[in-house]
Amino acid sequence: MTEHTQLETTQMNYGNDRPPAKNPLKVEDLSLRDGHQSLFATRGRTEDMIPVAERMDDIGFWAVEVWGGATFDTMHRFLGEDPWERLRTLKRYFKKTPLSMLLRGQNLVGYRNYADDVAKLFVKKTVDNGLEIFRTFDALNDYRNFESVVPVIKECGAHFQGCICYTLTEPRLGGEVYNLDYYIKKAKDLEAMGADSICIKDMAGLMAPYDAYQLVKALKANVKPLIHLHSHFTSGMSPMTHLKAVEAGVDIVDTCVTPYAYRTSHAALEPLVMALLGTNRDTGFDIKALADINEILEKEVMPKYKHLLDDTKVSLIDINVLLHQTPGGMLSNLVNQLREMDSLDKIGQVYKELPRVRKELGQIPLVTPTSQIVGTQTVNNVLFDTKEERYKMISGQVKDLCYGLYGKTSVPIDPEVQKKALKGYTRGEEPITCRPAQVLEPELEKAKQEIKDLAKNDEDLLLYALFPVTGKKFLKQKYGLEEMSDVLKPVSLEDVKKQDALIKKAKTGELMEKPCFEKTENTRIFNVFVDGECFEVGVEEQGGAPGISHVAPAAGISSPSRTSAPKASPAAPEAPVQVKPEPGPVKQDAEKTGSASDTGTPVTAPMPGMVIRHEKQVGDAVEEGETVVVIEAMKMENALPAPKTGTVSAIHFDTGDAVAKGDVLAVID
Amino acid sequence: MTEHTQLETTQMNYGNDRPPAKNPLKVEDLSLRDGHQSLFATRGRTEDMIPVAERMDDIGFWAVEVWGGATFDTMHRFLGEDPWERLRTLKRYFKKTPLSMLLRGQNLVGYRNYADDVAKLFVKKTVDNGLEIFRTFDALNDYRNFESVVPVIKECGAHFQGCICYTLTEPRLGGEVYNLDYYIKKAKDLEAMGADSICIKDMAGLMAPYDAYQLVKALKANVKPLIHLHSHFTSGMSPMTHLKAVEAGVDIVDTCVTPYAYRTSHAALEPLVMALLGTNRDTGFDIKALADINEILEKEVMPKYKHLLDDTKVSLIDINVLLHQTPGGMLSNLVNQLREMDSLDKIGQVYKELPRVRKELGQIPLVTPTSQIVGTQTVNNVLFDTKEERYKMISGQVKDLCYGLYGKTSVPIDPEVQKKALKGYTRGEEPITCRPAQVLEPELEKAKQEIKDLAKNDEDLLLYALFPVTGKKFLKQKYGLEEMSDVLKPVSLEDVKKQDALIKKAKTGELMEKPCFEKTENTRIFNVFVDGECFEVGVEEQGGAPGISHVAPAAGISSPSRTSAPKASPAAPEAPVQVKPEPGPVKQDAEKTGSASDTGTPVTAPMPGMVIRHEKQVGDAVEEGETVVVIEAMKMENALPAPKTGTVSAIHFDTGDAVAKGDVLAVID
Repeated sequence: MTEHTQLETTQMNYGNDRPPAKNPLKVEDLSLRDGHQSLFATRGRTEDMIPVAERMDDIGFWAVEVWGGATFDTMHRFLGEDPWERLRTLKRYFKKTPLSMLLRGQNLVGYRNYADDVAKLFVKKTVDNGLEIFRTFDALNDYRNFESVVPVIKECGAHFQGCICYTLTEPRLGGEVYNLDYYIKKAKDLEAMGADSICIKDMAGLMAPYDAYQLVKALKANVKPLIHLHSHFTSGMSPMTHLKAVEAGVDIVDTCVTPYAYRTSHAALEPLVMALLGTNRDTGFDIKALADINEILEKEVMPKYKHLLDDTKVSLIDINVLLHQTPGGMLSNLVNQLREMDSLDKIGQVYKELPRVRKELGQIPLVTPTSQIVGTQTVNNVLFDTKEERYKMISGQVKDLCYGLYGKTSVPIDPEVQKKALKGYTRGEEPITCRPAQVLEPELEKAKQEIKDLAKNDEDLLLYALFPVTGKKFLKQKYGLEEMSDVLKPVSLEDVKKQDALIKKAKTGELMEKPCFEKTENTRIFNVFVDGECFEVGVEEQGGAPGISHVAPAAGISSPSRTSAPKASPAAPEAPVQVKPEPGPVKQDAEKTGSASDTGTPVTAPMPGMVIRHEKQVGDAVEEGETVVVIEAMKMENALPAPKTGTVSAIHFDTGDAVAKGDVLAVID
Repeated sequence: MTEHTQLETTQMNYGNDRPPAKNPLKVEDLSLRDGHQSLFATRGRTEDMIPVAERMDDIGFWAVEVWGGATFDTMHRFLGEDPWERLRTLKRYFKKTPLSMLLRGQNLVGYRNYADDVAKLFVKKTVDNGLEIFRTFDALNDYRNFESVVPVIKECGAHFQGCICYTLTEPRLGGEVYNLDYYIKKAKDLEAMGADSICIKDMAGLMAPYDAYQLVKALKANVKPLIHLHSHFTSGMSPMTHLKAVEAGVDIVDTCVTPYAYRTSHAALEPLVMALLGTNRDTGFDIKALADINEILEKEVMPKYKHLLDDTKVSLIDINVLLHQTPGGMLSNLVNQLREMDSLDKIGQVYKELPRVRKELGQIPLVTPTSQIVGTQTVNNVLFDTKEERYKMISGQVKDLCYGLYGKTSVPIDPEVQKKALKGYTRGEEPITCRPAQVLEPELEKAKQEIKDLAKNDEDLLLYALFPVTGKKFLKQKYGLEEMSDVLKPVSLEDVKKQDALIKKAKTGELMEKPCFEKTENTRIFNVFVDGECFEVGVEEQGGAPGISHVAPAAGISSPSRTSAPKASPAAPEAPVQVKPEPGPVKQDAEKTGSASDTGTPVTAPMPGMVIRHEKQVGDAVEEGETVVVIEAMKMENALPAPKTGTVSAIHFDTGDAVAKGDVLAVID
């Protein structure tokens, strides 16, 4: 049993003029990065951060997190925003509080290891644009992946925060791999690398309160840097975990302000502030000022994002996290992948296969991207494996992992799986043991040559180097060479209110489906006025009975009268029914899907996804099993092999095209 | 500084075969009472409790709470269910786990003190129907209000749990009234009364974790009965408060299973189970069995209630609770009352007036019904007081409180307020100091005579005695003398799914408002078939243009085709618009609202509510200031005084009628 210490109440003045505590708890606010990433799919716009930015700057946060991988990706891809511009804008508002980002080690803000030249320039430009604290993590806790960024962080005078990804194989801290010794060793490694602070990154919300106590105590006893706790609310344990970590002497915790808190995000700041009021760890924060921030957010910002909240369940926490020790997002990804494959009944098999695949792949921590790698491979195994053969369909990322491209796994990868994965692997069949980025050729020059004048500065160049397809598209929009799609544009509070009013009416039964009619040349059009509303009515003779072929409220005339539901006619006669075929929501392009006209053997998409690379072109010879085309599904690359030896006779989709399950991507003759 | 003790980890077996802990934490589950009361306005139906009842019985709960004031009220009033029947039904499923209820002391399950004969019969019949644990509370912590029920509870062999309502005047435990000594004294009082256990009832979620630690330690040191903690999640502190209470040695805590947890309900059970796993306070519960219960609830039950969740905010906790030390429900009631009076701009004044009114009324705890009493009086003061005169409109409940009918207040009531409130008070102008129910005449015989044969047994009789208006209405429905309104009937999962699909379509813009048409005798009716759907179309000549007067999908023929939005006609001509007046959702009865025909001085409703009593009838003489009619608004009675001396010449509404703000309730000539 560990010797426990607790907080002492030092004073009874609870006002905002209270004297500072002996050892005030420091707090990093994550609302503007992990908050909206967790609750609203990272869709938060810069314009919606500004209304509270100056007030947040006054609170006294140790740092505010505003940038990260998903932020960078989502902004240029779905919001039509330049991620660099956000950094510069927020820096103008946060004059006192350092800006922090989540850096994926050598993955930077992407999903693969980038070459050293990209990594170094990225860090430098990030500091140039206003960032001060680099929370750096590696999915495998292989700190060799920090080696190229850390010196640049240090040279730029920025703060290097090293992360230890927290993961478990048992319900509680312990077991053969992820025990106390593991974490102490990792902390010492980070200290040796010059970490200014060490963050325990519990992205899945797995950390139980008494484990947090034990862990923080041990880290405080063994290393000097500040200890920082990042623990998601997902499982519901984090408010307790925070408190026990504070008692154990943690220096900094991560929270969100209330509107961005809870669910799969973080516990709210305000209850913690009140809990510590008057103790030796009192944050000293002004609770009234926090209430003002919340009120502004609820009034001006949240209405625009509310529809993005996951409302499929009433439950706010995910019990399965506690049962399976895996991130909640990973579990819901698995469910989604199975649903898209019409195989939701196999979820039990997936839960069983998951720990097996994880162990075979080196018992790696489960965090982006390793959670997707393990999750997708598990689904692939459950769906495609046969009794005779496991790992029938191995994702590109698993191959990279087996090659050593992500780094060193916690335990060695199963040699049979590794051998199979590396058969015909383009970089070589023998895995590497060096620092992964060492085998990568420099990428910047190549990127420069490709993007040419479209990149006006280093920031543009990096955007392209990190995201060649979507980054290029964004740069075209940014510089007016391509129209920005309407879906990328922000919605106004006014639009949102209209939408909400409509939904409210749907709930009270005041709405009906819009009817669908098509005019023909025989249709006679009348303007009909009903209860003050003008309808354009098309009537068409069809077998003697007048048929309405078009009904639409006429534009410009609105009805001031309240509408109510018409009664259905009590007895309608049976009648011949004419059904017109309707195009589905996604148009099927005959040229692209027309497998009927192809005579060869098709390469079909086993899952919905996006085509990201053709490894073979029309006319190329392929051997059975060689990769023809690579599709991305759930952030994972899936290499589709040739079903037979032959020649590629057709390719039906371009890079960037979305494909449905069963679509013919290529044909082998 | 208090000496703190913490938990020890006793074993590392985390499976369900783990040996029992040294001092396992006991848990009462509140899902089936406080859970759906807090989240779904107590609308949970018995049929939706049965699917998980047997599984919950297997968990090992110390008790399950299934009954209480709001349950009793809502069931017969809004669900068409007999509350006694629920008790009997659930007892059949909970074979091992004791059923618990929340008893409002002498208020039983209502909002006033009932006479001793009613109280005694109520307790006896409740035990007869299967209840075993009476969690008994009094809003003023005046335990004289327990004196008539406790002996009956004991005689029946049931468990008497005495509550201390937890309330504060400062942000943390302390101050002149509600300090540690206060709670210790109350616990000793309960012990002396024979309490089998003592519950600290933190209905507002005000209890901070370190206060919980201090309080539980002190209670455990000073009294023998089991100590039980009830702390709502409302402010977000309760997960931490639970943990510190457990460390301090609390015997029992209240939680809900995850789907019924959080928001204004209680923290979820499951994270606490996991947090204590392997410690000396391990609950021993099977987390997998809990996950199964959650899955059933999410699949079969929650979809029926989801629409009742408060979705006006994204925030899941209420920061204002931390700022004002008042229950969240009370604050939202205040906001609602102000909104209904078009006075939301006065919320700041209300927050200022609130502590003043509370102090003047004896610094009473804020819990049902005292939170409503203080809240409504505060709103009345802000809305109706003038510079010259405070307490211009005193609610009936404040008069009762000043008379002593609720019991003894924590500090004496302000004598001036008390004097004003009791001027002309029907029971007398001199307040009582005895046990309140002592002045009440027996009520059962009178109730029996009134309800006659409609009550077939004591349970029916009690229902009537407690709720004369709605209880009688329910008994008529129960015995087939009155049709049960459709709105009282349960909805099926099928209905809910249709509704959800409709809302989803509203979000994607596939819906339009239902048109409103009325047929006349000139309308020619056609059956028109459009895209496989049959419409009954009425066409009526009107100035040469055919007018559609009625469009309704014909019953019995459904459309298999997908519909999509028609384009609005690009240029509709201007046209004369005919607007027909439409009845509003609440029919205005000319006879009842016709103030135009009245010549006297009107008594108008200052707020929306329900008429519950006429103190004067037509022809009665009244003096200025005397109560003419009493309306109920927000559970509070409001006595409306005569604006002048004269004779009542008209009464426009019956008892039970809903009235809008400004309605003329009576006329004085």
